[in-house]
Amino acid sequence: MWRATVLTLFPGFFPGPLGFSLAGDARDRAVWDVETVDIRDHGIGRHRAVDDTPAGGGPGMVIRADVVAASLDASIAPDDPRPRLFMSPRGKPLTQARVRSLASGDGVVILCGRFEGVDERVIAARGLEEVSIGDYVLSGGEIAALVLLDACVRLLPGVMGAQASGVDESFENDLLEYPQYTRPRHFEGQDIPPTLLSGDHGKIAAWRRAEALAVTRARRPDLLTNRRTDAD
Amino acid sequence: MWRATVLTLFPGFFPGPLGFSLAGDARDRAVWDVETVDIRDHGIGRHRAVDDTPAGGGPGMVIRADVVAASLDASIAPDDPRPRLFMSPRGKPLTQARVRSLASGDGVVILCGRFEGVDERVIAARGLEEVSIGDYVLSGGEIAALVLLDACVRLLPGVMGAQASGVDESFENDLLEYPQYTRPRHFEGQDIPPTLLSGDHGKIAAWRRAEALAVTRARRPDLLTNRRTDAD
Repeated sequence: MWRATVLTLFPGFFPGPLGFSLAGDARDRAVWDVETVDIRDHGIGRHRAVDDTPAGGGPGMVIRADVVAASLDASIAPDDPRPRLFMSPRGKPLTQARVRSLASGDGVVILCGRFEGVDERVIAARGLEEVSIGDYVLSGGEIAALVLLDACVRLLPGVMGAQASGVDESFENDLLEYPQYTRPRHFEGQDIPPTLLSGDHGKIAAWRRAEALAVTRARRPDLLTNRRTDAD
Repeated sequence: MWRATVLTLFPGFFPGPLGFSLAGDARDRAVWDVETVDIRDHGIGRHRAVDDTPAGGGPGMVIRADVVAASLDASIAPDDPRPRLFMSPRGKPLTQARVRSLASGDGVVILCGRFEGVDERVIAARGLEEVSIGDYVLSGGEIAALVLLDACVRLLPGVMGAQASGVDESFENDLLEYPQYTRPRHFEGQDIPPTLLSGDHGKIAAWRRAEALAVTRARRPDLLTNRRTDAD
């Protein structure tokens, strides 16, 4: 079973949306599971304080290094082979290649921040890998963790079934996906491209490759640049 | 009130995580709200079919153009001023600047896809803007919509309060945020950087600017490249 352990101040976020649909069905079949660790259980003193004001001043609160360390040490064995991720806009951008790598392993440990962030010292001290889901700021790491888990879970064996091999979708071969069409054949004056109705599988495959390249060139030329570099 | 209308096959995903914490409190105070439109209510025939096989073959199912058009036309007035977004890995990458722009408007209309996607023809016919939250593939647009909504809602007036002005956080000035520290002063042999404890506000601000630039240069030089280009 692929196992996710999530350290959070809001355990109620999980499984959340991952309790529905394909991910929820797969969880019911024990293909994967998520357990939460409530950071507040490892807070300081009678009030279980988890955060304090930023050193040097400024708005908001910072989660304490000792509280995060205690949460991790109490819930993860030292020899746990799973990557330890910290969801943060300062992290390395998540890619589909990284998702595939994570999905092929044993699972993940994820720390979710809140407030102004987490004390920098615990990130190095516990070997946390900062991962960003995009160049925007969220209210906390929880929804970012849901994104990462959803992306991984759909790739686990038996989750999507024959429905999607993942071979033709966006970011395979560093291309965006070609456009899709279905019935009705005519819609508000627009027809399905005739090639797709030709029954000629070779021509259809060629059309789709050309469309995928064209849409990537138009919208995301940066993906094609990376692609050339990788091939060098 | 900032209003989100979400067209989805899974209305149960909403408000989901956005019912908790700051976003949930703000929703209770009518700062914002989210209404869902169940695409299946606009399905075809007795079984309310919403999808069909891809033209040209291939795995999975594609959501029909006529069903999406009917869902939109039944729920959104023609003169509704809100942007109409379609969450898709083929879209323009979401940025914090775009989030700020959306948060300063009246709200958003969001179409969530599932399966292999949505018939291409309705995207143009209804002026949908494709938005991507990152270079990975999710099981559907719902969790991507939660990301976009969370990013916007935290910026609405009165949601974060004095807790975070947003001024010093990642992606302002195209920089990642400087590292944060809080008590205790000593943690497993690591001290808080002395400058932050100096009480000299000028030196602290200079240290933070230098650290933000250094971490951005090390981790995300692409942000600095864009920055120079913008200044030209």
